[in-house]
Amino acid sequence: MPTEIRTCLLPLLSQPDEFSGSVAVILDILRASSTIAYALNSGAKSVVPCQEVEEAHLVAEKLKKSEGAQVLLGGERLGVMIEGFDLDNSPARYPAEVVDGKSIVFTTSNGTRALKRAFQAKRILIGSFLNLDALVKELSILDGIICLVCAGTDGSVTGEDCLCAGAIAVELQNLSGQALALDDSTRIVADYYRLQTSKEDGILSAMRASIGGQNLIQRGFETDIQLCSQRGLISAVPEFKQASGEITL
Amino acid sequence: MPTEIRTCLLPLLSQPDEFSGSVAVILDILRASSTIAYALNSGAKSVVPCQEVEEAHLVAEKLKKSEGAQVLLGGERLGVMIEGFDLDNSPARYPAEVVDGKSIVFTTSNGTRALKRAFQAKRILIGSFLNLDALVKELSILDGIICLVCAGTDGSVTGEDCLCAGAIAVELQNLSGQALALDDSTRIVADYYRLQTSKEDGILSAMRASIGGQNLIQRGFETDIQLCSQRGLISAVPEFKQASGEITL
Repeated sequence: MPTEIRTCLLPLLSQPDEFSGSVAVILDILRASSTIAYALNSGAKSVVPCQEVEEAHLVAEKLKKSEGAQVLLGGERLGVMIEGFDLDNSPARYPAEVVDGKSIVFTTSNGTRALKRAFQAKRILIGSFLNLDALVKELSILDGIICLVCAGTDGSVTGEDCLCAGAIAVELQNLSGQALALDDSTRIVADYYRLQTSKEDGILSAMRASIGGQNLIQRGFETDIQLCSQRGLISAVPEFKQASGEITL
Repeated sequence: MPTEIRTCLLPLLSQPDEFSGSVAVILDILRASSTIAYALNSGAKSVVPCQEVEEAHLVAEKLKKSEGAQVLLGGERLGVMIEGFDLDNSPARYPAEVVDGKSIVFTTSNGTRALKRAFQAKRILIGSFLNLDALVKELSILDGIICLVCAGTDGSVTGEDCLCAGAIAVELQNLSGQALALDDSTRIVADYYRLQTSKEDGILSAMRASIGGQNLIQRGFETDIQLCSQRGLISAVPEFKQASGEITL
């Protein structure tokens, strides 16, 4: 069982070296981390996160040449598909018939930044409501410190990421026989989750009301909110490997 | 009635110009904002916040020379009194017999930084549990946007500041007949407050468990936590005036 849970409400609120020795969980619920989990669960070989669009094109070219890999370019800027890309950032666009066996070169604004911030962590896992139960199970058998990293939206704290951080903290506390040390941010998001889930359709309502949810509604991606709030749809826990730069199961 | 409440979980999470046109409420519950409210309620003429210790000495000298004012130096670094100062940052040290009619030149690490960040606000009020009811009453008759600025502790989000931000948001919502727009951070701290206060002695327990509370317990200031969690002890709302650089009632 871990000894401590910390929550980083935005990547910039932690210094990179604070992640050393810990297990980081990246949370960009609407939608990067949900989409990554969905794509890998659909049989994608790997997801290769890139900071910039230019970099994504170069990485995709290199992958095609070196491995003859079947490569798709996916991601978003300002919530919509990038020109010349194959897929946007909607998990629904990543079913098995589209992504099975393929490498996805993927760039999003907030999720990728959070991943980079946590680079010094011992392990980096990708979390979402979709794979919440599997993730909590995986975390519960680890030792040491878990850092829940909320990606936020363009530098603002977002409800949907905090809600999922709260869910992880509450579930881990429930599983733990012993007292888990929580920092103040974790206590706050745990109470947010507890209160929201005491209401009917609490997760979905909170996700819809959040900054991320409101942005998606405005851009016509309302159905993604419902998809991303389905708890336990996926039993896979994606992990980013610093050595290869790839996210795999 | 205001139209919108925003919560800034740490000063650095807002850009200075985001405060323009809004009313900012500075929250450094353990203990700067509680102490400022307490001192002014005890009859202090004004509190003059300073960023640096050196600056505080210069300001105090100047005040003594120019106005022949009775001046006390108050504040803390790392939670304890500054060498050569008259008072630390414990509200209990600021009763009427000590501060009545005097100017307090005051420097603390986090509260002063929060105040500086919000400098462009239309008005800057000082909030605490001590003056919560008076503050909420004052805020409820304002228009526009209210920004609740949590000072935090050395760059970390702290439970006690978030708890008071949540309290203000919940009380304003209760007073408001109409829907108040809340940002995600406000929703999160409001739920934190709601859940904590659903328990017996919830505010005191949450304050004790928080980073700020734990720091005070370690440094022997445990009684200050109890004092600072007393809701409604004071009916004054301190206001910082940018033009004079003073906080007065």
